[in-house]
Amino acid sequence: QKNLMLFSGRAHPELAEQVAKELDVQVTPQTARDFANGEIFVRFEESVRGSDAFVLQSHPFPLNQWVMEQLIMIDALKRGSAKRITAVLPFYPYARQDKKHRGREPISARLIADLLKTAGADRIITVDLHTDQIQGFFDGPVDHMHAQGQLAEYIRDRYGVENIAVVSPDSGRVRVAEKWADTLGGAPLAFIHKTRDPLVPNQVKSNRVVGEVEGRTCILIDDMIDTGGTIAGAVKILKEAGAGDVVIAATHGVLSHPASERLAACGAEEVIVTNTLPIDDEKRFPTLTVLSIAPLLARTIQEVFENGSVTSLFNGSA
Amino acid sequence: QKNLMLFSGRAHPELAEQVAKELDVQVTPQTARDFANGEIFVRFEESVRGSDAFVLQSHPFPLNQWVMEQLIMIDALKRGSAKRITAVLPFYPYARQDKKHRGREPISARLIADLLKTAGADRIITVDLHTDQIQGFFDGPVDHMHAQGQLAEYIRDRYGVENIAVVSPDSGRVRVAEKWADTLGGAPLAFIHKTRDPLVPNQVKSNRVVGEVEGRTCILIDDMIDTGGTIAGAVKILKEAGAGDVVIAATHGVLSHPASERLAACGAEEVIVTNTLPIDDEKRFPTLTVLSIAPLLARTIQEVFENGSVTSLFNGSA
Ligand SMILES: Nc1ncnc2c1ncn2[C@@H]1O[C@H](COP(=O)(O)O)[C@@H](O)[C@H]1O
Ligand SMILES: Nc1ncnc2c1ncn2[C@@H]1O[C@H](COP(=O)(O)O)[C@@H](O)[C@H]1O
Repeated sequence: QKNLMLFSGRAHPELAEQVAKELDVQVTPQTARDFANGEIFVRFEESVRGSDAFVLQSHPFPLNQWVMEQLIMIDALKRGSAKRITAVLPFYPYARQDKKHRGREPISARLIADLLKTAGADRIITVDLHTDQIQGFFDGPVDHMHAQGQLAEYIRDRYGVENIAVVSPDSGRVRVAEKWADTLGGAPLAFIHKTRDPLVPNQVKSNRVVGEVEGRTCILIDDMIDTGGTIAGAVKILKEAGAGDVVIAATHGVLSHPASERLAACGAEEVIVTNTLPIDDEKRFPTLTVLSIAPLLARTIQEVFENGSVTSLFNGSA
Repeated sequence: QKNLMLFSGRAHPELAEQVAKELDVQVTPQTARDFANGEIFVRFEESVRGSDAFVLQSHPFPLNQWVMEQLIMIDALKRGSAKRITAVLPFYPYARQDKKHRGREPISARLIADLLKTAGADRIITVDLHTDQIQGFFDGPVDHMHAQGQLAEYIRDRYGVENIAVVSPDSGRVRVAEKWADTLGGAPLAFIHKTRDPLVPNQVKSNRVVGEVEGRTCILIDDMIDTGGTIAGAVKILKEAGAGDVVIAATHGVLSHPASERLAACGAEEVIVTNTLPIDDEKRFPTLTVLSIAPLLARTIQEVFENGSVTSLFNGSA
């Protein structure tokens, strides 16, 4: 008899509680604390023997801390004879370091996959990887889920599909924007043709709009909003190009300083993200909407547990 | 032609400079920084192809950050075609979690070894492991060096070997104390018979002294001083038992708060540690002496580089 057990790191307990509620299970009680020198101690309060273990950890700042905590939890599960261990990473750490941009660089996204495997993870559940190729970094099954269905449904309900345009903030996301456009009733596509200095990330020089946005409600989409420079710049360019309302939708609200200030002031009608990362009160602002990713995670966990196919969820909405 | 290259994480640049000076090499220039969300970026400024690479990282608080940085550096070296990669860890992280003390616990010291191997480390150089068994956790050669020779020499010069006693702060270190006693001219041995609650680490109830200490200069030895509770308590017990001066000697000065206050006030004549960990100015106090571990690390690196035997250093002094 297999036994679904849900474990949670300390990065985002609220999300774990939401997932537990959806699954109608309890987050397994544990002791987790930091020793004086910063070493993490974890111990589970219940036997994990034979369990189908799902280890949920979110990866906000200080991210390396949460990576190590998840690895340590997985190690403890392995040694505690869990039957199968699935690492659940709603936001995959180091996803932007998925290739060498120049020589003598790490590929940290691959390193993360290898570290999870080494600690004892048999499979991974994650949401909206920065690039799809990261799935191939892990030596085992990866359930790569998408928040687009949920975000798009919210937008459809609120803004309709008439007179909208789907806008990619750069040339790299046009393919994703295309999928959005399909979901939103074949809306027209646009993207911002921008230049970025590879030596100064988090800093972007945005330029002109390619595509038709004038008078349209623009749905500006991205996988994550970090410091918000790109996306706030894109709103400005869209407005200058005569766009109507601009609505921002992204899966991951990293919201590093000064993202919240930038987004609140950028002129966007609404900024929609999910809670793959915790969003503290002081990061919130009036036009921010946070949708819960818990239903998607819970359904994926349930289907993995039942050895069911997760394909139906890939493009699915609630 | 093999090429020794020294790399340094950001945890303890001073130690790296000392080691580089001893080896008469330069620390390889690199870019290392934290992105806004806490992800670490590392890039080396020189080709590492074919090099015999030594990656020095110290592990003070916030230790998990430095673990990840060293792993990322090793990953970058592996992908940059370094010929051999040696991880140099003067203070081995998570060494105290070297076994399951109860069920459902991780063995984080083993996890660290596996993570280093997975990232690409071929071998490890480390100093005074909390337990010797940790050598067996790494799947490859481990050069396990000891600071005892250097510490004992300092003590011999300063306090002589007449009328001293070597004291272990607990029953677990008696064996190590025995080696010290040999080094210090066959000094008598003592230890503190103490009780500790396994659920409340960093907290110790010390009891009575076993062995002859009355009127003697007591050399109280340990591998590390973390919050200093154990060792400060031991000084008190020794004084109550009629000891003369108490001199504390330990390899690793973790010195988590409130160690410095405790040690400064505990009545010890002198506290001697090495700089396997950085010791900031605000942690220093008048009776603290910090010896540099750089000569030992440099000699070990040199001998590994030359494929020489390191045995001569094991018990050796400078
Ligand atoms: N955590 C991070 N924050 C900001 N930029 C990053 C981060 N990690 C990697 N990068 C940089 O982001 C760029 C890749 O982003 P992208 O072109 O969107 O895939 C590269 O220049 C990376 O060095
Ligand atoms: N970083 C740490 N700080 C304090 N205590 C720790 C740390 N890591 C592990 N421990 C605990 O220290 C004890 C083992 O220490 P020892 O008996 O000296 O080997 C165990 O109870 C561990 O849970």
